[in-house]
Amino acid sequence: MKLLTVDTVSEARKKLRERCSGLMPGTEEVSLTEAAGRILAFDIFSEENIPPYRRSIMDGYAVRSSDVGAAGDMIPTMLKVSGEVLLGTDSSGLTVEPGCCVYVPTGGYVPEGADAVVMIEFCEAFGDGMLAVSKSAAHGENVVQIGEDVAEGDMLLPKGRKLRPQDIGVLAAAGIASVPVIVPWRVTVISTGDELVGPDETPGPGQIRDINSYTIASRSAAEGFSVVRVLSLKDDDRAIKDALESAKADSDLVVMSGGSSQGKKDMSAELIGKAADSGVLTHGIAAKPGKPTITAYDSKSNTLFIGLPGHPAAALMVYEQVLIWLWHEFSGHDGGLKIRAKVTANIPAAPGRMTFQLVRLTDGDEPEAVPVFARSGMISPMSASDGYFVMSENTEGIRPGDTVTVHLWR
Amino acid sequence: MKLLTVDTVSEARKKLRERCSGLMPGTEEVSLTEAAGRILAFDIFSEENIPPYRRSIMDGYAVRSSDVGAAGDMIPTMLKVSGEVLLGTDSSGLTVEPGCCVYVPTGGYVPEGADAVVMIEFCEAFGDGMLAVSKSAAHGENVVQIGEDVAEGDMLLPKGRKLRPQDIGVLAAAGIASVPVIVPWRVTVISTGDELVGPDETPGPGQIRDINSYTIASRSAAEGFSVVRVLSLKDDDRAIKDALESAKADSDLVVMSGGSSQGKKDMSAELIGKAADSGVLTHGIAAKPGKPTITAYDSKSNTLFIGLPGHPAAALMVYEQVLIWLWHEFSGHDGGLKIRAKVTANIPAAPGRMTFQLVRLTDGDEPEAVPVFARSGMISPMSASDGYFVMSENTEGIRPGDTVTVHLWR
Repeated sequence: MKLLTVDTVSEARKKLRERCSGLMPGTEEVSLTEAAGRILAFDIFSEENIPPYRRSIMDGYAVRSSDVGAAGDMIPTMLKVSGEVLLGTDSSGLTVEPGCCVYVPTGGYVPEGADAVVMIEFCEAFGDGMLAVSKSAAHGENVVQIGEDVAEGDMLLPKGRKLRPQDIGVLAAAGIASVPVIVPWRVTVISTGDELVGPDETPGPGQIRDINSYTIASRSAAEGFSVVRVLSLKDDDRAIKDALESAKADSDLVVMSGGSSQGKKDMSAELIGKAADSGVLTHGIAAKPGKPTITAYDSKSNTLFIGLPGHPAAALMVYEQVLIWLWHEFSGHDGGLKIRAKVTANIPAAPGRMTFQLVRLTDGDEPEAVPVFARSGMISPMSASDGYFVMSENTEGIRPGDTVTVHLWR
Repeated sequence: MKLLTVDTVSEARKKLRERCSGLMPGTEEVSLTEAAGRILAFDIFSEENIPPYRRSIMDGYAVRSSDVGAAGDMIPTMLKVSGEVLLGTDSSGLTVEPGCCVYVPTGGYVPEGADAVVMIEFCEAFGDGMLAVSKSAAHGENVVQIGEDVAEGDMLLPKGRKLRPQDIGVLAAAGIASVPVIVPWRVTVISTGDELVGPDETPGPGQIRDINSYTIASRSAAEGFSVVRVLSLKDDDRAIKDALESAKADSDLVVMSGGSSQGKKDMSAELIGKAADSGVLTHGIAAKPGKPTITAYDSKSNTLFIGLPGHPAAALMVYEQVLIWLWHEFSGHDGGLKIRAKVTANIPAAPGRMTFQLVRLTDGDEPEAVPVFARSGMISPMSASDGYFVMSENTEGIRPGDTVTVHLWR
């Protein structure tokens, strides 16, 4: 089987988006304490005003601003202290009458009648219930109005937001104790090859250690996917076929990475094609690195199969640019963190292919992107890099000083 | 009790680093499958060469380059195929004699004698065991040398690295099945206030919802800390005192956030001071927002107490700039993700105080930092922001077009 139907990255993505709609993730409701890091399934609107009452932002005295218009250092205005607001107790019965004032702590209720708060530093209380105010106050001064922070009906957080600590805080503030979030994909990771051994084994002659199942499982978990199982299989048609079949029952995604030799790739493609009732969608991607990529979809079980290149850096980049891309499309979350940086060296592009170039970023105020070159199959450049940039099919290359968008590794 | 000993942020940090050495985190060994996201405790060196043998980067034939020096399209060189390398089997006995060649798949062992691999596309095999090679090969062509990727003794990963998927892959490749990582701090989060209610309750008059315990617990978990318990307590000396005492037994860090009124802050400071045998380290930080911050250390139990400002945005920024800062100092991990951006508006600084300014970043190639202004105690600006930048005590302010370093929220 040859790589006859090589797709561009855009074509491969388009097929996935159009043919794999059964992979559109579901939603579930989780409590706030479990929501951090999850992706919001819907826009969230506030059903309340925050604050729900007029609130003081200072420790001070609630006054009528018209009463203290003439107050100053030299000639303070005298007001009668007619009450005190206590946090946590009902002060809604209090009113500030003309010539009077009420003590209000920070965050406290500003009583009816008052329209400003004078900071406690500008007030002196006398024993007889009178207060000397030595500063005037503008209408509304030191008072947060009802709904000024969040008004009833305001959008609190948008669909697709990956919930950060402060987002959880905002939800708590608005009295939202649980939220609808996206159900993560369930993933089976399979690496195949007679030559593969685990990190705790010493490779014999001709053997190498399995890398991709560790990288891909870890990347999947970092994205929030549920990693159902990680298998390392020999080149045994029967065993691989069984693994693909049984993964249909409990996985949305089956990520397979085989050897990089032509014969092995053929076998992977055939097995993946047989497991998926819609057959192979893409067999070969016009990307460098990343050409030997296979996608196939089983519409009965709604399972997406992907055969990744054997080389670890290529496997990870294709996983990012194709699978994680699809997840972001379907979940509504744009998870990619990108920064702009100037490149320090010439990078040739591969005409007709999308090219991924590893870079590390320099320290300092204006970080530069220093290309990290990797010969085929090398693994150390991956961990020496901070991310990569993409050159489109039509780029001739990048010159030193050109600015690129660096996708930062997670 | 007044805020008599107001420290700059640097002074507060210095005290923590010098006085709280008992908080230096321990290390533990974890297996690779549990290591993602953890912080490496030591530099990791490779005990092996990668690759451990000369490896082909192509499907092709291992040759002596001197044999094929004259090979070309028109006049191919004829070689005798003397063997085949099979992945996963022992090929170390094979040798390429002069005039001979051996088939090698991608990733396969390059036998003794050979010093180059000719891509399979340039070879034609005849039935009689002879091969026509139509392209010359330079010495070393298509061959990865022993240790070329990683040499024995090379540093694989530095201390302080938060392990990413590809780092896990590199460790697997080097046969490192477990790694020493930093043991996370154990944190107790306490919010106090008679006025606080949970997100599932409707606040009565004078009541507000607890925000800080949600924000701080979530931020702690995002940093990898182990959140031991989250408590919401009334303003009850006895209950708070008991909670602080019992947290000493199982927490490295006790984060308390009380009300923002002066009386409450005094009570918090007193209780924290009494719980810590070394007394209060810092009582007030010259930061805006963030002044009402208290730190105290108990050297008997090695517990750090911190009283955060009551206002959610202030609490989160102080937590980042003081506590998370200390964690990065002690763990060796520089976790802050920062980008440079031009500011779109005038921002006045607060002379003598470090100023934290919330911003959101615009989309596009050269993101700009748009200030998000928050009146005291507001919560919606936190979730509307992508991060914040810091103005030092000596800055007069920022003008439109000035470039700043934006600390991105987690």
